[in-house]
Amino acid sequence: MSRYDVRYINPFLLAVVDVLGTMAMVQATPGKPYINTARTSTGDVTGLIGITGHARGVISLSLDEKCILAIVSNMLGESFTKINEDIVDAVGELTNMIAGQARVHLANDGLNFQASTPSVITGKNHTLNHISKQPILSIPFTTPDGNLVVEISLSDNE
Amino acid sequence: MSRYDVRYINPFLLAVVDVLGTMAMVQATPGKPYINTARTSTGDVTGLIGITGHARGVISLSLDEKCILAIVSNMLGESFTKINEDIVDAVGELTNMIAGQARVHLANDGLNFQASTPSVITGKNHTLNHISKQPILSIPFTTPDGNLVVEISLSDNE
Repeated sequence: MSRYDVRYINPFLLAVVDVLGTMAMVQATPGKPYINTARTSTGDVTGLIGITGHARGVISLSLDEKCILAIVSNMLGESFTKINEDIVDAVGELTNMIAGQARVHLANDGLNFQASTPSVITGKNHTLNHISKQPILSIPFTTPDGNLVVEISLSDNE
Repeated sequence: MSRYDVRYINPFLLAVVDVLGTMAMVQATPGKPYINTARTSTGDVTGLIGITGHARGVISLSLDEKCILAIVSNMLGESFTKINEDIVDAVGELTNMIAGQARVHLANDGLNFQASTPSVITGKNHTLNHISKQPILSIPFTTPDGNLVVEISLSDNE
């Protein structure tokens, strides 16, 4: 797994399960982490956040449409049937919270990161290309309503 | 222009004109900067980079397909006719260089920022949504082969 030992995996596992459980009462079940050799993320909606500090990188969260609609319907207590501005804002907030919780866990291991603001990509055929010479770590999750994946791309500081 | 005084505009103006002129011998002509109230960026390809430090935010660079094909054809000395992996890598590199030069200018004004690694979004119908409560600054440019826009989204530190 190269530089992606358990120190990077567990903080994101815990953050996703806790944030989705707490905010949306959605149970996310982690799958087996893998190195994403394609270096791209695809989904119906993707939140991403840049990080600096111990290393430079990007944390992204890509979700199926059905999955995010169920999550946000639970979060906000009303039924959503398509990706609109409320969904975009919720994906930004979830990305921020997951990155924030993971950063707390990482800081407890002595790995300190600062985070940018989140961005959210929409559009059915979008692809997020990670620009990094290091391996891209992917952690997939299933929920009762669809799939999501968290990806962590890190590079050494200049 | 709220917090977007000339201290934020000129560093990006200079960086875009200099990077495209030096790397690709492409003359970029700046248009009038404006506040992007839609808070979204659209283009055929978008590079973005997260920043931390003086404030948290995102710098993005969205380009027409024709514009980026001409730029990269000039940069690499061969003719490109569609957005492929070489174009994606070049957009990542250009985003990195423009953000880097702008950060040098900003640092000379006492505004210090660190940058994440870049990401590049492809897909004809993608939209980048800026998640920020502050105004989004847009600086448009024209080139002989098409248009590009640089957007700067900043939020206060937590």
